[in-house]
Amino acid sequence: QPSPLSAPANDTSTSRVKDESSFLIKRKPDILENIHMNFLLRSSLEIPDGGRQSSIRLNEARFEVLGTIVPDLDFRVRYHLNSSQMPKDLDNAPGSLDYAAVNYRFGRKKKWSVNVGKQAAFVGSWEFENDPTYEYQYSEFVNFQTNLFMMAIRFGYQVNQNHSFFLQLHNTDNSSFNTTQANAGYPADGLKGAKNPMGVYATWQGKMFNQKFLTFWSYDISQYASGKTNHSVALGNKVILNKFQAYLDLQWAALAVDYINLATPSINKYQQMVNPAFTPVFARDIHYKGAVLRMDYEFIPGWFITAKGILESDSQTKNNSTIGKNFRENIGIVAGLEYQPIPSQHMKLFGYYYYNQVKFRHVVADANDNQHLNLFAVGVLYSVNAF
Amino acid sequence: QPSPLSAPANDTSTSRVKDESSFLIKRKPDILENIHMNFLLRSSLEIPDGGRQSSIRLNEARFEVLGTIVPDLDFRVRYHLNSSQMPKDLDNAPGSLDYAAVNYRFGRKKKWSVNVGKQAAFVGSWEFENDPTYEYQYSEFVNFQTNLFMMAIRFGYQVNQNHSFFLQLHNTDNSSFNTTQANAGYPADGLKGAKNPMGVYATWQGKMFNQKFLTFWSYDISQYASGKTNHSVALGNKVILNKFQAYLDLQWAALAVDYINLATPSINKYQQMVNPAFTPVFARDIHYKGAVLRMDYEFIPGWFITAKGILESDSQTKNNSTIGKNFRENIGIVAGLEYQPIPSQHMKLFGYYYYNQVKFRHVVADANDNQHLNLFAVGVLYSVNAF
Amino acid sequence: QPSPLSAPANDTSTSRVKDESSFLIKRKPDILENIHMNFLLRSSLEIPDGGRQSSIRLNEARFEVLGTIVPDLDFRVRYHLNSSQMPKDLDNAPGSLDYAAVNYRFGRKKKWSVNVGKQAAFVGSWEFENDPTYEYQYSEFVNFQTNLFMMAIRFGYQVNQNHSFFLQLHNTDNSSFNTTQANAGYPADGLKGAKNPMGVYATWQGKMFNQKFLTFWSYDISQYASGKTNHSVALGNKVILNKFQAYLDLQWAALAVDYINLATPSINKYQQMVNPAFTPVFARDIHYKGAVLRMDYEFIPGWFITAKGILESDSQTKNNSTIGKNFRENIGIVAGLEYQPIPSQHMKLFGYYYYNQVKFRHVVADANDNQHLNLFAVGVLYSVNAF
Repeated sequence: QPSPLSAPANDTSTSRVKDESSFLIKRKPDILENIHMNFLLRSSLEIPDGGRQSSIRLNEARFEVLGTIVPDLDFRVRYHLNSSQMPKDLDNAPGSLDYAAVNYRFGRKKKWSVNVGKQAAFVGSWEFENDPTYEYQYSEFVNFQTNLFMMAIRFGYQVNQNHSFFLQLHNTDNSSFNTTQANAGYPADGLKGAKNPMGVYATWQGKMFNQKFLTFWSYDISQYASGKTNHSVALGNKVILNKFQAYLDLQWAALAVDYINLATPSINKYQQMVNPAFTPVFARDIHYKGAVLRMDYEFIPGWFITAKGILESDSQTKNNSTIGKNFRENIGIVAGLEYQPIPSQHMKLFGYYYYNQVKFRHVVADANDNQHLNLFAVGVLYSVNAF
Repeated sequence: QPSPLSAPANDTSTSRVKDESSFLIKRKPDILENIHMNFLLRSSLEIPDGGRQSSIRLNEARFEVLGTIVPDLDFRVRYHLNSSQMPKDLDNAPGSLDYAAVNYRFGRKKKWSVNVGKQAAFVGSWEFENDPTYEYQYSEFVNFQTNLFMMAIRFGYQVNQNHSFFLQLHNTDNSSFNTTQANAGYPADGLKGAKNPMGVYATWQGKMFNQKFLTFWSYDISQYASGKTNHSVALGNKVILNKFQAYLDLQWAALAVDYINLATPSINKYQQMVNPAFTPVFARDIHYKGAVLRMDYEFIPGWFITAKGILESDSQTKNNSTIGKNFRENIGIVAGLEYQPIPSQHMKLFGYYYYNQVKFRHVVADANDNQHLNLFAVGVLYSVNAF
Repeated sequence: QPSPLSAPANDTSTSRVKDESSFLIKRKPDILENIHMNFLLRSSLEIPDGGRQSSIRLNEARFEVLGTIVPDLDFRVRYHLNSSQMPKDLDNAPGSLDYAAVNYRFGRKKKWSVNVGKQAAFVGSWEFENDPTYEYQYSEFVNFQTNLFMMAIRFGYQVNQNHSFFLQLHNTDNSSFNTTQANAGYPADGLKGAKNPMGVYATWQGKMFNQKFLTFWSYDISQYASGKTNHSVALGNKVILNKFQAYLDLQWAALAVDYINLATPSINKYQQMVNPAFTPVFARDIHYKGAVLRMDYEFIPGWFITAKGILESDSQTKNNSTIGKNFRENIGIVAGLEYQPIPSQHMKLFGYYYYNQVKFRHVVADANDNQHLNLFAVGVLYSVNAF
């Protein structure tokens, strides 16, 4: 299976790097043989339309150390250098810490594994699994909809070289429900935190057609507010050819309580328009669905075009709700050009255009204006493998 | 003496590691010979009783680099990846920084040393000196009673292989008295910060009985509020046998002003019960005493049982105070089972039970209810020596 | 040119280190040949005069990794371990991050370079370019007047071994104008943030007289508030002899709006004295000028004396303003003694005296008292090159 501990992460030029690596072999001492230190860096000049200010922005700055000191035992720590280090109240881990995990393989033929600590949700989003240095703009699924770095205990079983299955017991969120509700500024509304605010991902990773087609599919069941159950399904699919890569991620989620608070504000705004005395609360019974397609093509050695499309929507249809189907839609398009001057190094000069629209439908549209963004960016990214 | 710069820190399986290390020698280049990078990781699923929420928690995540580049000159930096990085106002260092110190040995036969920077109080608590990865639950002495990571200048003299003496000039706290008082929400009450809010530890480290019995004893005198002097004594004692280790730490402290604010709230609550107009202030003349006993036994190679008992109490007896002896008691019991599958690696799968009680006596008990906690935890710890 | 990626940074004992390095060659594996990890540490006991509290303070604690993995491509990351990690709103980078930059050389003979990311302003202040471990006290130019670590895209052209020219496109500040104004607590006063709150440094670095005399000169034009243009000139000059080093930095700046907010409060205080109903705002048309002179002399091998003088002033003369010339002056004097016991290591035991005065003139002096500080400090610094 794609190792969660490989360094550096997947990118679009893997094949070229491998071809060249035989010319670049450097003597590495035994002691560092399987220890890696990485930095993920991306900076760009962003020029948005309208009254928004232009600026040069630090898009990525992460520090990573990972390794395998003895066979069958791995560790991984990854850390944002540009986000708050305050620990959250449910998991005692800060948002700046992506990974702080230990992975141990055991059993006959080492087919079993257990991974404990702060880690990535094994949800099956190729957009999220990609080296973040390379993802210029994310879907709302990655940015908000799903809690992607969390405390978990993940059990794995590798059936053969091509197929693995996982069960991942996880905290539903990093903060407690009461804290999340207080931060949103909502009253209790009959809700309280679950005694066990946890869930389980059941995940399949597969490689097919001579490892040219990869699947990463999951089902999750979790609770956060007491007595309210969430379900979600994610189907990540990826094609890797010589000069071309693409992924298509398909996602569904059903939240009894929309504690994500992404679709909720538009409903609250509508309810307050109808009834000015209405007190904002978390919306109930929100259904999310989303699709993300990205394609990368190396049209000349070292030159890439990349294109990405995002389509996501929220619905509330239970009990014939007037809110209705697809009352909120998020649409994103990225089109970019990349130049990688040094084949062995994951450094690229890039430029891209990004269009984003958030669109409202039905009664919710009466109270919420659609939002548009046009953005042009040029910059440099470098996924540094220091050793 | 036990070097404050050894990597990784003491643990319960040292003897087994040494036996095995001859089979695990890895080629290390000269340049890294005496440079070490460590990560301290512990995560566990914690299941408390009562209405408290269960969750998987990040118990430890620290990053450490230390080394000796040339003989007689050491540096050590250790950093929490999961606590706030805001500097405190008296020492300009954040709580997340355990160590940022330079140690220099000098004089004839290099028997003298000076250690300057953020460092551990040389107080003589084996509980605190233990690798924090291994200490599942701490006494209040470590968590609150004593300021254990602080700015200091420590002079040492090594009499012989078995005995060393130290004088450590240190800031009493990380924040100024005025800030501590403001954070507690108390009025000045006639107190102000000392011009020199510092103290001195006088410490003896000894090894006896063929280095099977270790002492780590200290006396400290300090001031924090102007004209108010604090005294404390700590006697740390440790036994190291082949399959068995134990320590017994005994501690006393006399605080003219209880700026620790651990015993104070229960007295304030009592005073407000007697007189609702009473304004909360720091209690005066608090006497603390504590004892911590921990035992570790490797009953089968790779399998350990561990047990820990904590007993601490506060008294206020000056001028026949009605508050009286042992008006607040903290009792803790930890019983655990550990499995270390790979002898050379400080990685353990563990489960433990923790009982904690805070108990009030005499008049203070009229206003404060006793508190109880039962906790069961399972998880993984790994004190990683990356190189 | 002096490489921005050299490790460790310039210091006053370079010549001695080079002499000795042939005796200290350590085997370094290929993989780490051009990768460096550094720690900058300085701690001291500071004893100020008057009612101020003495304390041992952590003056410096920075972590740095930099390197050149393949020719012509460098990266550099440097990080404060003792300042807040919250990202600023304009650049998405925290104040704790000094560097997170990628440098790429290109073109015929690799004379061209582009450096993108969080980086140092190429302003030409030798005081600022010096390893911060060695600068005990900074001028206001470094501390406040100039935004020295910022997001930028820097193009360079190396004419020959001795002369280079640079154009650095940069964000004017790390936060947006609206945030800066809100943090200062001032009303809009007819100002708003520029659509493009950026500027450009044009810089010359030169080496003359057998590389014994170094120049680092720049001109900058930038905007921050909409329609308000800032200009500045900096002339950094440095002499490097065998046992003696000195730099003289000369600086001018003209700010249409004093968003630095260093000179502004004294004017506001005066305006409020004249008219108690006056609402504090950013002062307009402030002219700054400054000079910093530092000299270091190794009078006995391993023993250094250091002296530094700072003189800075602010004026407001446009439209015959009553505020006038040099209405605020900052004067600083540092005199110190350093002992470096190990020639190959940038570790020094030091003591210094610091005098600082902020002085007001003309009408502003009627509302503002002069301020004085005397400070004595002893401590240890170590610019650690771990590998």
